[in-house]
Amino acid sequence: MDCEFISIGEVLMYLKKEKISNIEERAKLIQAFIDKENKSSGNAYDRYLENGASTFMNVVTEHSGTKKECILWCVNHYLSLNRNANVIEKACSALRQFGTGCGTAASSCGMSSLHKEIEKRVAKLVGKEKAVLFPTGFSANLGAISYIVGSKDLIIFDRECHSSILNGIKLSEAKWISFKHNDVADLEIKLKKYESSYENIFVVVESAYSMSGDLSPLKEITSLKKSCSFYLYVDEAHTFGIYGEKGQGYCYEQGVTDEVDFIMSTLSKATASIGGFFAAKQKYCSLLRWSDAYLFQACLTPADAAVVLASLDEIENDPSLIKELHAKNQYMRNSLISKGFNLGNSKSPIIPIFIEDHNKLRMVVDELYQKGIYSTPVVFPAVKANEGRIRLLVNYAHTKEQIDYTVEALENISNKYQII
Amino acid sequence: MDCEFISIGEVLMYLKKEKISNIEERAKLIQAFIDKENKSSGNAYDRYLENGASTFMNVVTEHSGTKKECILWCVNHYLSLNRNANVIEKACSALRQFGTGCGTAASSCGMSSLHKEIEKRVAKLVGKEKAVLFPTGFSANLGAISYIVGSKDLIIFDRECHSSILNGIKLSEAKWISFKHNDVADLEIKLKKYESSYENIFVVVESAYSMSGDLSPLKEITSLKKSCSFYLYVDEAHTFGIYGEKGQGYCYEQGVTDEVDFIMSTLSKATASIGGFFAAKQKYCSLLRWSDAYLFQACLTPADAAVVLASLDEIENDPSLIKELHAKNQYMRNSLISKGFNLGNSKSPIIPIFIEDHNKLRMVVDELYQKGIYSTPVVFPAVKANEGRIRLLVNYAHTKEQIDYTVEALENISNKYQII
Repeated sequence: MDCEFISIGEVLMYLKKEKISNIEERAKLIQAFIDKENKSSGNAYDRYLENGASTFMNVVTEHSGTKKECILWCVNHYLSLNRNANVIEKACSALRQFGTGCGTAASSCGMSSLHKEIEKRVAKLVGKEKAVLFPTGFSANLGAISYIVGSKDLIIFDRECHSSILNGIKLSEAKWISFKHNDVADLEIKLKKYESSYENIFVVVESAYSMSGDLSPLKEITSLKKSCSFYLYVDEAHTFGIYGEKGQGYCYEQGVTDEVDFIMSTLSKATASIGGFFAAKQKYCSLLRWSDAYLFQACLTPADAAVVLASLDEIENDPSLIKELHAKNQYMRNSLISKGFNLGNSKSPIIPIFIEDHNKLRMVVDELYQKGIYSTPVVFPAVKANEGRIRLLVNYAHTKEQIDYTVEALENISNKYQII
Repeated sequence: MDCEFISIGEVLMYLKKEKISNIEERAKLIQAFIDKENKSSGNAYDRYLENGASTFMNVVTEHSGTKKECILWCVNHYLSLNRNANVIEKACSALRQFGTGCGTAASSCGMSSLHKEIEKRVAKLVGKEKAVLFPTGFSANLGAISYIVGSKDLIIFDRECHSSILNGIKLSEAKWISFKHNDVADLEIKLKKYESSYENIFVVVESAYSMSGDLSPLKEITSLKKSCSFYLYVDEAHTFGIYGEKGQGYCYEQGVTDEVDFIMSTLSKATASIGGFFAAKQKYCSLLRWSDAYLFQACLTPADAAVVLASLDEIENDPSLIKELHAKNQYMRNSLISKGFNLGNSKSPIIPIFIEDHNKLRMVVDELYQKGIYSTPVVFPAVKANEGRIRLLVNYAHTKEQIDYTVEALENISNKYQII
């Protein structure tokens, strides 16, 4: 079967636009695209890390089995605690003491003292009464948003909110609309327009946006509470653990914790594990423990739970982790800006390089890979069809040399393709 | 606030029947119930295992901090591999080699060679071309069912299907209806009634049902394919790893693998870890890799992945694990039946003891707990409002003495409350 699509984003956009819903047609088109990619330079989404996440690692292309040593810019372990010896040894101890899995959900006694300690510790850290632990960040958003919001409510969410939030919204019984990305004026207009038509309004934002790397104007958003009535839900996935001197997060750093009703974060980024939590007043946490995603999922494994606790220990005991990360982020940003790159409004350790043209995006990613620099192309559905980009996620363990080498390569390739 | 509800199931049923959707009203009622419970004998859902899952462990009541050593019947690690020394040591090795987390989703290079090995191995084991790995079983069902089924399709699912399946169905764009539990005649009627009205029909069943412990009539269901056109999706959560001489699952044991289009299982039960997989023809797996739950969730951690592989090693190398589990299951069943318990149609290592009256159910669970026997009461929404029960999950590591002690206690308490 011939396949004329340049990127998987184009295939998926085509399926959406043409409203192709049949499993056979969809599977055939996608398989044809992947087969074509595998015959040429290889499918960018068919790669894995030979020995796990790091800042430098062999990237293996599954189809061909070829390997290439690369500097990695795709890992969200901002503090590089996944390779921290203390964290690793505490996880091993937990395996020996608590076993490998929990074997059931929290409601059937699946939690251990480690899990309860996480709930207490993250609640205290972000400044809320209680927290509820989920086995993934995705399911924390899915479970929380689908369950705490009621059928007579309206959800107003930032247009760049993560897929887990969107899936939670879809699963809820509420109505929903989006507001323009980080646009407080647009949010205010919508709050005023709809506040009399719904029992409650829930505003959902992220403290830092995963695809654009910009921070939420949380002070302005919370100040809307003076004139409008709404609940505020903030996803701190990309800020928990790396903003605030002890990693309390961006709500804390901005001094708005008390105005934020619900704080959520994944545990798979700064804390180098997997899982997610929802923190709020006790009564909301008591409610959330009856959501499907909480009731019917096995708990985080003891090793993963121990990694979260050990990572929080490291963050608390070594303030240089957070400081150094932000210094490296600033260094790379300054360097890229001095070369003429437009980094949009990004500020967090997520640096986007916008390349609208799918073909150019693909070429740049391929050439970087040839030079031993790995970054996944970001296309639809992660971003809108015309908003393709490369994302560079700065980690604590990235060296100045790795940053310099990457910036230089990006500059050369971008000049070649007239991107800067 | 006064609270007259006997069980959390009654609270949740009341909220549903009265269509109470407001977060404040729901949170207040639930908090009032929990506060009342904590003042009396304690909230049965507020307990955790001091040192993790096992067949014998200190159960801690969080509110009061009290501890009690109990025989545990709530753990789905059927083969008790969570405490297997080989499995634990392989997980520790993986932590040292691969680090603690993956830091990103599979589509951004989050997988390692361990993850790819799981995909290959489970696909081969269940007898399918390929498999797709998810970080939880819940999200595997959610991601697969919501994505592979199209907007012009109909889903017909068994009425006792798990919450993760129901959430996947709700998230899909398809229409759906249920058929009577394990009732092939009812399924056939519905297939024939609807086959001309939809582009495709997807039938979703479980090989063993988590709340009733009965097995699916897979031979009869697959034989319907001779006269009706449909895709068949089988969730093997409670059979993968423990049916078939090497744990290939119940589809394999029944000889119907080729008639089943999609096989799914969690990895949090027999394989003592967390995660889930979807196995099918390559083209369907290629399609599924673009579902939200796959694209936007961090991968299983390396330690959890290593646990899956090590557990599969144990299952393969030691056929006595599966044999002994089934022997213990049979021993406990025979013993309970000889005392007059009605175990319904259950056959798998999930043994239900039906206690319709919420008050009696609660008393029985409490008295068992006083005797050092732990089992969570199963109420709405896990089962229908009038179908409350205790579930006894037989594990490989349960001793004959633990079984005898439990059966005797159950007999005495059940006689007291006139349940048998």
